[in-house]
Amino acid sequence: MSLLVVGSVALDTVETPFGRAEDALGGSATFFSAAASLFCPVQLVGVVGDDYPMQGLQFLADRGVDLGGLEQAQGESFRWSGVYSYDLNSRETLDTRLGVFADFAPKIPEGFRDAEWVFLGNIDPELQLGVLDQVRSPKLVACDTMNLWIDIKRERVLDLLQRVDMLMINDGEARQLSGDHNLARAARWIQSRGPRYLIIKKGEHGAILFTPTGTFFAPGYPLEEVFDPTGAGDSFAGGFMGHLAQCGRLEDSDLRRAVVYGSVLGSYACERFSVERLRDLTADEVEERVRHFREMTSFELPVGEEAGV
Amino acid sequence: MSLLVVGSVALDTVETPFGRAEDALGGSATFFSAAASLFCPVQLVGVVGDDYPMQGLQFLADRGVDLGGLEQAQGESFRWSGVYSYDLNSRETLDTRLGVFADFAPKIPEGFRDAEWVFLGNIDPELQLGVLDQVRSPKLVACDTMNLWIDIKRERVLDLLQRVDMLMINDGEARQLSGDHNLARAARWIQSRGPRYLIIKKGEHGAILFTPTGTFFAPGYPLEEVFDPTGAGDSFAGGFMGHLAQCGRLEDSDLRRAVVYGSVLGSYACERFSVERLRDLTADEVEERVRHFREMTSFELPVGEEAGV
Repeated sequence: MSLLVVGSVALDTVETPFGRAEDALGGSATFFSAAASLFCPVQLVGVVGDDYPMQGLQFLADRGVDLGGLEQAQGESFRWSGVYSYDLNSRETLDTRLGVFADFAPKIPEGFRDAEWVFLGNIDPELQLGVLDQVRSPKLVACDTMNLWIDIKRERVLDLLQRVDMLMINDGEARQLSGDHNLARAARWIQSRGPRYLIIKKGEHGAILFTPTGTFFAPGYPLEEVFDPTGAGDSFAGGFMGHLAQCGRLEDSDLRRAVVYGSVLGSYACERFSVERLRDLTADEVEERVRHFREMTSFELPVGEEAGV
Repeated sequence: MSLLVVGSVALDTVETPFGRAEDALGGSATFFSAAASLFCPVQLVGVVGDDYPMQGLQFLADRGVDLGGLEQAQGESFRWSGVYSYDLNSRETLDTRLGVFADFAPKIPEGFRDAEWVFLGNIDPELQLGVLDQVRSPKLVACDTMNLWIDIKRERVLDLLQRVDMLMINDGEARQLSGDHNLARAARWIQSRGPRYLIIKKGEHGAILFTPTGTFFAPGYPLEEVFDPTGAGDSFAGGFMGHLAQCGRLEDSDLRRAVVYGSVLGSYACERFSVERLRDLTADEVEERVRHFREMTSFELPVGEEAGV
């Protein structure tokens, strides 16, 4: 059940209506690992500068994250800073300093190349393709991307779609990529370009899974206090892939349940700054919220109809 | 299972990216009745001018809508015209001419006053309160309202909340009414003001039901072609109340299923202009989409957990 993630390991400075966190642990691979390691061992590939507070990642190692693929290069770590609107529904990037991340070319350690489950965090699609040349026979490759790459490297993104099993993006990106504002049609377009599976994340409005045989909706968890949404998408991916790797199967029912685990991890990630909430999250808390999702979405068909489903 | 609706009966001129409909049947009571009459008899109270094409409403009468409370007054009928944005997510009102609706004071016919199920469409809250003085002992009163009334008649809206069992509004209205952008908190605030039940409609993102004991999410139905969203909310209300009136119960499980019926009717309403799609919609088509909702939202808990729910 080996699970490999390739992505950024960064330092985030975030301002929300509830406060400010400076140089806090961030990056797609960090959030992903913090979430996925609740389910199974994780192999992380990324790069940080020589200024990175490595002791901050110790909790990941303690939870079974193999940091053997985390290169420490000379120079500054990737730093991002942003400020959220009062309703947390939009954010403005104040500064992005790539540092050593600018020259990142993921090298997958020999011991990671047989990973069965692979997640390509949101990095340059050329680098994501490079990772695929290094892994041997993954059971499932899922990848993320963003508006920037769809904008400036559209052809590479399309190449990537032909080589991955699943794309996991947000609704705005799905619309941008397909050129269609209707999500049902956008999904069909994307699936016709390669990926068997597609997840469209809609933030507080939940997530939709498209498979060759059906569609599954998970609502957004109705948090009364959203503290900091940074990393929610990568935590979603971590919960999703972590559950799949743990259960080891790819049936429709497994994928659906994995979307719920993803939603649960994404929701917990928003409850505090950085990876703070994921750090002390327990498996029991995860299961409790999964059951709550089920309560929130279950309904009975009219009497006599149950057999028909 | 008598179901009473009080609301507008109008003529809509609508422009969408797909075409234009002029002086088409519209109004909250019209959409509501067209949807609800698929489930049970409906009693309609409203007013039209002497220019209204009454034969257009014949299909409602044929489906068991009692038009005995539809007054025809001297003057022009209520007319609304609007144009939708290319993605159908926003619309601009071009013109509103109240006509005879300006002097509407709902008079509930004696034969309607024992209605068990009552829906107050979006009209002046003073008039909605007036209706409540005329009905005897309804099992459930649900009402709609809008930004205009929350703005200019806030105190009357709050009075109304104390006298209804359910409020059914969209997310923007819930935020405006409560003064809270967080929907979970907004819901708690609204429920503390009176209504035992609350439904927040989120358009393409679905609907949320809040009861004293829990929360239920229904996704938006993933239509590949949204033709005209006008009346979707009232069709939702019609499907919701129609199903409840038909089943005659108010258990949590009934309310949840009713939200799904509401979502189904709302989605069908969007498939053509005006009430055109609801006009020839069959009970079988409704049941088919209800089953599809269930397929889209069902998931299995991990092995061994099922018994715990």
